[in-house]
Amino acid sequence: GDIAAGKAKSATCAACHGANGISQIPMYPNLAGQKEQYLALQMKAFRDGERKNMVMAPMAKPLSDEDIANLSAYYASLDPAGK
Amino acid sequence: GDIAAGKAKSATCAACHGANGISQIPMYPNLAGQKEQYLALQMKAFRDGERKNMVMAPMAKPLSDEDIANLSAYYASLDPAGK
Repeated sequence: GDIAAGKAKSATCAACHGANGISQIPMYPNLAGQKEQYLALQMKAFRDGERKNMVMAPMAKPLSDEDIANLSAYYASLDPAGK
Repeated sequence: GDIAAGKAKSATCAACHGANGISQIPMYPNLAGQKEQYLALQMKAFRDGERKNMVMAPMAKPLSDEDIANLSAYYASLDPAGK
């Protein structure tokens, strides 16, 4: 995926997952430095309803495979310690 | 949860999620430094079948709430950069 395109796409995600990919909300996961393939699998699962979550479903629904690849590359590229 | 008890319980988990909580397998998530509450919610979801995964279901099935609290505390306590 394209990290810059992923960053551009991540504005909405940052609200819950943090501008640096470290969530400020205990129920929501940190994404910074997570495995790229795992991230893509989860976004597709949310998009396709295979993994059910009322908050993530509408977030993932409009994403194309390319968006998902870019977002996955972006979050995987972030420093896991959030710096 | 009790971090030491979680560490003792984590022997099986380390096979996929890494001894330091950083997975060596692209499909499996890093757990080190993840949100404690998020980890507990996911383990319960796997245990109770709310979140479906053929690998995680048998792993989570035997876990008590206390095991889950301890494992969550343990993985949340690990350095997200895996050091």
